Formats: sequence, structure tokens, C-alpha cells
Amino acid sequence: MNRLRVLFACTLLAGLSLVSAVAFAQDSLPSWNDGKAKQSIVSFVEKVTKEGSADFVPVAERIATFDNDGTLWAEQPMYFQFLFALDRVKVLAPQHPEWKTKEPFASLLKGNVKGALAGGERAMVEIVMATHAGMTTEEFETVVRDWIAGAKHPKTGRLYTEMVYQPMLELIAHLRANGFKTFIVSGGGIEFMRPWTEKVYGIPPQQVVGSSIKTKFELRDGKPVLMRLPELNFIDDGAGKPVGINQHIGRRPVFAFGNSDGDLQMLQWTAAGGGVRFMGLVHHTDAAREWAYDRTSAIGRLDKALDEAQAKGWTVVDMKTDWKRVFAFE
Amino acid sequence: MNRLRVLFACTLLAGLSLVSAVAFAQDSLPSWNDGKAKQSIVSFVEKVTKEGSADFVPVAERIATFDNDGTLWAEQPMYFQFLFALDRVKVLAPQHPEWKTKEPFASLLKGNVKGALAGGERAMVEIVMATHAGMTTEEFETVVRDWIAGAKHPKTGRLYTEMVYQPMLELIAHLRANGFKTFIVSGGGIEFMRPWTEKVYGIPPQQVVGSSIKTKFELRDGKPVLMRLPELNFIDDGAGKPVGINQHIGRRPVFAFGNSDGDLQMLQWTAAGGGVRFMGLVHHTDAAREWAYDRTSAIGRLDKALDEAQAKGWTVVDMKTDWKRVFAFE
Repeated sequence: MNRLRVLFACTLLAGLSLVSAVAFAQDSLPSWNDGKAKQSIVSFVEKVTKEGSADFVPVAERIATFDNDGTLWAEQPMYFQFLFALDRVKVLAPQHPEWKTKEPFASLLKGNVKGALAGGERAMVEIVMATHAGMTTEEFETVVRDWIAGAKHPKTGRLYTEMVYQPMLELIAHLRANGFKTFIVSGGGIEFMRPWTEKVYGIPPQQVVGSSIKTKFELRDGKPVLMRLPELNFIDDGAGKPVGINQHIGRRPVFAFGNSDGDLQMLQWTAAGGGVRFMGLVHHTDAAREWAYDRTSAIGRLDKALDEAQAKGWTVVDMKTDWKRVFAFE
Repeated sequence: MNRLRVLFACTLLAGLSLVSAVAFAQDSLPSWNDGKAKQSIVSFVEKVTKEGSADFVPVAERIATFDNDGTLWAEQPMYFQFLFALDRVKVLAPQHPEWKTKEPFASLLKGNVKGALAGGERAMVEIVMATHAGMTTEEFETVVRDWIAGAKHPKTGRLYTEMVYQPMLELIAHLRANGFKTFIVSGGGIEFMRPWTEKVYGIPPQQVVGSSIKTKFELRDGKPVLMRLPELNFIDDGAGKPVGINQHIGRRPVFAFGNSDGDLQMLQWTAAGGGVRFMGLVHHTDAAREWAYDRTSAIGRLDKALDEAQAKGWTVVDMKTDWKRVFAFE
């Protein structure tokens, strides 16, 4: 009788955990509307995690890579890292009286961003180097931490870390719950992201791949530091993304998500692996809740990658119809 | 009565698991002789994993970095990767008739390694580029896999992957069992190590940091590949090691192990973090079981780092007295 009672209790428990497992699976993407995009994600994860299936992928190979700007958080009206640089120019201006008459800084300090950027890529690089180099890695980390803790987005008035997409947070968590290792592979600065990605996305520093400037090991008063030099090291964008993935991860992703032409090669690289793969794009179609832009946008242009996604049947998320909620604060 | 019986069973179980936990702790480094080196490792791990202690380190920050050549596997009579390159020169020679008269290849093909290396660093770089570049990353991976599966060490006649140090394998496993993430940070080629480090050390590709040549994303007959270019990208040695650690891991190690002056800056960088840290060096003192070399060796010179270790009280492993066994095959 005792044995029977135990058996009964066990069956009940097993039943309950089955119910809760199913409930969890149904609930793990609550901010996604039912539709092709959500279905393609759920079905991919089911396929590659089902032991014994032909599509099964061992845990060690469950590598998922995500672009950041426009894929995990917003990128309008300008990349947030560029807004950071503009804020830094203002903070640093008193130490640089020469900026009053020197472009691109002179225009910037008058609030004329367009004028400053008339100098093209050279102007951009000058702004980045003036604000990102000439300090130790620890000093830069502190600057980023302080900025990200307080700076507000010009349109929403929200902290930048509040402008992450709730459906993508759920997707990352869903993948991790299914044995995936999630990586950021972004054109943004690697050291600009690392101070906050663990808290915001649960992605630790060693799983962040990004653009970088060179650093140099030095002893300063006998203390070892890494100085940030005004010299480009690596641009993790476009054809650079597979290079960065190979350099940092050393394994081809089975799952990759981006939102712009800068992600095309990452998706191609992912697709070219054997077996079942997932390639996804966020299409910004929602001018009311976020922004609507694609083929002609200066920031986050999505043109060639959209054509290739449509031709090859990759998942294209229509933000307006596929996402129940865009931001958690809605 | 039933409740008492359950209580008794639980106490017994708790007692048993306590016993086995202690037994495990005593046994986790069986190839290490009792002594200062072993004690320093055990006591460090106890300190940083004890919750509530002032020295406690959260799991996310338990980063341990290991040099490879001379620290995890042997490096005499020459770095194994260089022996790989020499083997490759022989294999590739029929496709390069010009090598018969062109140095450093002409000397190499006559078995005159010393003559080939008379050309200094330039000769080395030429040999590396001729054997490591000009193919895709996948092709190179296959070449490395094939070589490592069959090539034998000139002195021991063993596979190179058998020439890993048994005490260091136990140390890596002990750290991992205590929540550490273990990384390789080696002057060796990152793509030369990745094909076998997971199997041999349990260290996956994304936790391998090393030297590299540049790669380039290309579409070859519509298929994306990464071509390996004959151009240096990064030398992960000496002052390069903290740079590589920062670039790949983005977090300062709390534990670092090396064996030569090329590891000095990695140990300095580790030591300069706050709180308790572990810095270790393997000192090759055992000419009978392995090799004995230090201050004047061309390969793995240990001179300045030995002085600094002694001055600062870092752990120096005396291979002869601290290791019960060097290789598993003994």
C-alpha cells in the first residue's frame, strides 16, 4: 500500500511537471504574436534539441549570434554609441579649447551634428578617437558605466538600456533555456557594450564580439594598465562579422539574428553550415511604437539582406505585426 | 517512527556525501606531491569559493587562464606547432619546386633546421605563412586534425596530445569543478589549438586565445569561406597576452599559469586586480622525465618571470619535486 501511494505520488508529480513544461514552452515568447516568425523560432528550437532526431545539435554547438543595434536595442535617430560620443565631446570640451575652431568638434559644440558629419568617415573617426581613446580600459569602462546609468534617449526620455526589445529578451532567454550559448556580434564597440550586456541581456563579456581600437600594455607607476590607442583594430561589420565570429567563437553559429545589410555576411556564414540553421532579420516597420525604415535609411539600412532573406526563406520579423510589445515600458 | 527512520536515513546520506566530498577534495590533484605548490592551489580555491568569506569570488568572475606550450603540454625540442610546420613543408614541397633552391625551404628539405632558422624571424614567418595561409579556415582545420591524430614526437614517439601534463589536467578539472571558466592564452596559433583543445583539455574553441593571421570573408562559387591570408593579425605573447585577454575575455583573470617570460605580463595583469589572486609558473627542472631548462633556453626561456615570481611570492612549480607524474603514459 505504501508502495502504491508512492507510485501514485510520483505519477502525479510527473504529470504536473509535464504540464508545467508544456506551459513554459507556450509562454516563453509571450511578447510575440502567433505567426510565421514565432513559429519558425519555436520549431527550429524543437528540432535541434530533440535527441535522436536527424536535426539534433549537441549543446556545445548551439551557438547563437545576435547583432545589437536595431536587433536587440533601438538605433534611431542615431546609433546610441554615437550619442554617447557626442555627450563625451561636450564633457571633454573644457580640456580642449582648440575644439572651438576645429572641425568636426566646432560644429558639434554648436549643436550642429549634420555639419560635423559633413566631414564624412574621417569626421566620425576623429570623434570616436577623441572620445574613446587616450585612457586606460578601466577608465573607459567607468565612463561608459556612468553614462549608461543616467543618459536619456532624446525621443523617449528613457534610459538607453530600457530601449531593448522585449521580444528579443524573451528569445535570448528561450535559447539559453534550451542549451544555447548566446553571443552579441555587433558593429558597435566591444568595450562600449561589455559594461552593461551581462545585466541587460545576461550575456557576459567573453560572449561579446564587436569593433575595437588597439590597446597597449604598459606599466604606469609600476601598475599594469591597458592604454586605449587612437588606432582602429577591427571593424566588426559586414564581411567583418564572420571574421569576428571565427576569431572569438571559433565555431559557426547555428542561429543568427540581425536587422541590416551589415548582418548579411553573418547570416550567409551561418546558413552555409551543414544541417538545419536559423537566420533571422528584424524589419523595422512600426513608426508608431518604434521607427519604420529599411532600404534607404542611413542608419541600419536593410536592402540586400531583405532581398536575400526573401529569396532564401529566412525569417523576417515584421515588428508591427509580429511583436505584441516592443519595449517593456509600453 | 517512520519520521525518525527518514531522519536517520537523511543523516546517513548527508554523512556519506560529506565523506565523499572530502575524499574528492583530497583526491582531485592526485598527481601532485604534497608541498607548497599543491597547498597554494588548494588553499586559493577554498578561499575564493567560500561564500561569505572576504575573499569570495562570484562564479562569473572565476576566470582562469593558462599558457599552453610548456604549461599544459611540452615544448621541447621545439614548439610543437613549429614541428607541424616542418612536416607541412615536406608535404607541400612537390607543389613548390622553387623551394629546392629557395631559403629557408631548401635547408629544411635537406633536414637542416638550424640552417633554415639562420634567417631569423623572417625565415620563421616565411615558414609559418607558407604552411598556415593560402587556404580556407575549414581546410586548415582538417590539416591540423589529420596531423595531430597521427604525428609522433621525435623523442618520445608519442602523439603530441599525449604529451600534456597530467597534473595540469587535474588542476584544470579541479578549477572547473569549483565554478571556474578555464581559458588557454597562448603564443601558439589560435586555429592550430582549437581543433583539439576541447577533447584534450575540455576547453572549447571560444575559450582559446592565441596568435593569428588575418582572414578574409569571400564567396567562392557562391559559398562563403574565410580565406587565411599571409599577414600577421595578432601575436599573443608577452605584452600581447593582457591585450588578448582583454579582447577575448573582457574580464581580468583571478588565476593565471604560465612557464616562461612570455607569460610575465599575463601574471602581472592578473596580480594587479583587487582581492586574492593566484599566479603560477611551471619550472622545468626534470631532465629525466621531461626536460630541464630555464634562464638560457631559446624555447620557453624563464628568467625575468622567475625573478619576479620569487620576489612576489607567486607559486613556482618545481616539476621534479612537485609532480608525482608528468605524463599519463608514464
